Amino acid sequence: MTEKKAAIIIGAGPGLGASLCRGFAKDGYAVCAVRRTKEKLEPLVAEIEAGDGEAHAFGADAADEAAVEDLFTRVEQEVGPVDLVVFNANGFRKKSVLETTAQDFRSTWENAAFAGFLAGRAAARRMIERERGTILYTGATASTRGGSGFAAFASAKFALKATAQALARELGPKGIHVAHVVVDGVIATPATREWIDDAETKEDEDELLDTDAIAQAYRHLARQHRSAWTFELDLRPWTEEW
Amino acid sequence: MTEKKAAIIIGAGPGLGASLCRGFAKDGYAVCAVRRTKEKLEPLVAEIEAGDGEAHAFGADAADEAAVEDLFTRVEQEVGPVDLVVFNANGFRKKSVLETTAQDFRSTWENAAFAGFLAGRAAARRMIERERGTILYTGATASTRGGSGFAAFASAKFALKATAQALARELGPKGIHVAHVVVDGVIATPATREWIDDAETKEDEDELLDTDAIAQAYRHLARQHRSAWTFELDLRPWTEEW
Amino acid sequence: MTEKKAAIIIGAGPGLGASLCRGFAKDGYAVCAVRRTKEKLEPLVAEIEAGDGEAHAFGADAADEAAVEDLFTRVEQEVGPVDLVVFNANGFRKKSVLETTAQDFRSTWENAAFAGFLAGRAAARRMIERERGTILYTGATASTRGGSGFAAFASAKFALKATAQALARELGPKGIHVAHVVVDGVIATPATREWIDDAETKEDEDELLDTDAIAQAYRHLARQHRSAWTFELDLRPWTEEW
Amino acid sequence: MTEKKAAIIIGAGPGLGASLCRGFAKDGYAVCAVRRTKEKLEPLVAEIEAGDGEAHAFGADAADEAAVEDLFTRVEQEVGPVDLVVFNANGFRKKSVLETTAQDFRSTWENAAFAGFLAGRAAARRMIERERGTILYTGATASTRGGSGFAAFASAKFALKATAQALARELGPKGIHVAHVVVDGVIATPATREWIDDAETKEDEDELLDTDAIAQAYRHLARQHRSAWTFELDLRPWTEEW
Repeated sequence: MTEKKAAIIIGAGPGLGASLCRGFAKDGYAVCAVRRTKEKLEPLVAEIEAGDGEAHAFGADAADEAAVEDLFTRVEQEVGPVDLVVFNANGFRKKSVLETTAQDFRSTWENAAFAGFLAGRAAARRMIERERGTILYTGATASTRGGSGFAAFASAKFALKATAQALARELGPKGIHVAHVVVDGVIATPATREWIDDAETKEDEDELLDTDAIAQAYRHLARQHRSAWTFELDLRPWTEEW
Repeated sequence: MTEKKAAIIIGAGPGLGASLCRGFAKDGYAVCAVRRTKEKLEPLVAEIEAGDGEAHAFGADAADEAAVEDLFTRVEQEVGPVDLVVFNANGFRKKSVLETTAQDFRSTWENAAFAGFLAGRAAARRMIERERGTILYTGATASTRGGSGFAAFASAKFALKATAQALARELGPKGIHVAHVVVDGVIATPATREWIDDAETKEDEDELLDTDAIAQAYRHLARQHRSAWTFELDLRPWTEEW
Repeated sequence: MTEKKAAIIIGAGPGLGASLCRGFAKDGYAVCAVRRTKEKLEPLVAEIEAGDGEAHAFGADAADEAAVEDLFTRVEQEVGPVDLVVFNANGFRKKSVLETTAQDFRSTWENAAFAGFLAGRAAARRMIERERGTILYTGATASTRGGSGFAAFASAKFALKATAQALARELGPKGIHVAHVVVDGVIATPATREWIDDAETKEDEDELLDTDAIAQAYRHLARQHRSAWTFELDLRPWTEEW
Repeated sequence: MTEKKAAIIIGAGPGLGASLCRGFAKDGYAVCAVRRTKEKLEPLVAEIEAGDGEAHAFGADAADEAAVEDLFTRVEQEVGPVDLVVFNANGFRKKSVLETTAQDFRSTWENAAFAGFLAGRAAARRMIERERGTILYTGATASTRGGSGFAAFASAKFALKATAQALARELGPKGIHVAHVVVDGVIATPATREWIDDAETKEDEDELLDTDAIAQAYRHLARQHRSAWTFELDLRPWTEEW
């Protein structure tokens, strides 16, 4: 068991997830990185530990209730009391509503919204008796409007935002800070560098969201004094057309 | 087969649903009322037909993909082309997030959001080749904010609103009008008359939403000219504290 | 004195204003049309009266407190009790913030926001003892977001929306219905037909907002039962990109 | 002339304004504190300088165009290039719309909205050629809804928010970061400690917004990387009912 407070980062992929893990390790948390496949986390854990941080890898399907409960139980037993949870699963999908299958619609919701409820509830059940803790959710442009082609994705992201709000209002007066970060633009990740035109130029000009810059906002939220908590903030590149 | 245009009212319960059926029958639609249990619709159908309107009863589980497809197919074969769909299913639920089960969260979403996607998609697939039609969704206070105790319900109603928006933006330029009505208060129904204090006095003073008055707004939306379509309007009693 | 209820339409220009006057005259109001220059209203008044409606022309600067008080006093003395007020002044302006003069910023606010406060207060002071009446405000795209070039105009339209909200919340429980209509697109008017490309084609395809179609929504609002009042609805052409 | 970057804090009263001055002085800015009465700023300037920070006092009426231009000119001449501007004027007012005078409505707007436009424009004109700078606006609960009694104040705060949005969208792609902080609750200040019941207990329990805690959020905004800029964040005490 560590003397550090544990932070669970769900959706610790190679983009924003990894930056969140690195950033919170620097801030003194024992970072518990979570992805579906535990092995993929090993380089990140090694990198953090090489930098004198503490990190642990966990494999779990965030949309599986038993797996989420097991994750939180193991973290509390093996690492320490959970003081911070970031729900950073994504699940971007764009498709005409005419071609969206019932399975598309359902699985988008399961991964982006239902999993967020499971994580929030598991966190709340543990944090509530300690009367402290922070739960952060990653939102997207689709959290703010349902554009053409976004029936499944926007509907899941709206659902996640409402879940975050309901948690914030129920748990705030119990000492638990819940917040929602609207990432309104394209993040520079290994994946988006592949499919965005002129990705390199755009990244050089800071026209894609830098994952470490995003993580700074999460780190600020986790440090806020309880007399002045933020529920929501938005983030976008300086050049973004709104 | 009727010469009238068919209107499918999903969620044709004894409150708002029945008023929508009566109102759209007066406006000349062949009303297809839908509830889980077909038999419960018989008095309503009889009443509408006694008033020289046209009405048909259908039993279907709106969250069952095959049942929804079957419903739309039967209406088009037995009644006429679907020109109006109202998704009026409800599924109100209030519970601490700590006590909300995964099944609560999932079934609330299935009935209030997933079913709305199924209805909208089934309508769109049929209306799109005719380049006309109207799809109306019933929202609630929980469509606008996730209050304490509303993790499941607000999350489902936010998801429904996003689905409606995405449909509106994709289908509007195809000639299909999609709108969302935020019913922001307590509706006077057989059920709410039971659990609201002083329901009779409040109803006499118009402090509960009257179902026929709500239906007027839906009827207005269905008559709007395509140069000036509404996506969203809210409705609340005059005395409502915001 | 008429036996009809009086409706004051402030901003009765040749586009939406004229359609509002015609529509409310058909609905049985004694229409009091208001523009800066009374003479310009004469053809509209003559047209309405030729169609068996009742209309009166008033010249007033809606941003001049004394002129507004005088207007309401004269209407109540010469026409009848004011039961409906529409504040339809516009004042569109687009300019870089760097070039926006203090006078631009101030006069836009005076005509679009301060004048709306004066009209609402004058209406409220007369309606409140009768415990009835309707006050409708015309909003715009700039009521919902402050785009580049819209520092003056959006700021005035946001101010008008807030005024409408504050009136709605204070006056609703006194029996006065206050609502705000967001006209989100280009209206077909004599002026826009001049500066829009392909205006004729767009108007034929219903891609510009038709003023009579917009007026239908205002007429619906003025007829709503007090158990189900709308505060806000939006209107846009079917083809509008959001 | 200092080698530091200048920060102009308009509305440097004894509550939030003073904390903003102290905080930005710690972050290395040459703080230019602005109030109507320059003399009242002397203790604050002395305190900051005693702590090895740099501070200057300026007296100006922020709603007076010439005074604002003169302020910015003097700061650039006497202190250094303006890199940060905080518009923190307040002007809280609550009054029935029936009793709100034209002068109430106008002066609230002049101090809370028009002054914000003047500050933003003066900042933009100087920052735009340097392609860098930050402009931060203080919002309030009344920036988000127009409650009963808030016709004047909410209308001014909505106007300020729209001004901030329009600046953000125009100036963002020019390298200038504009943001809006919604302070949604009662701030612990000398004034509120007088009129709030149980102010001491509430402050001890962090139920009033602490001014240094609020200032942390502004300081975070001023440090954000341009690839991930926030336009808006909200702040409220943990116990706040929403």
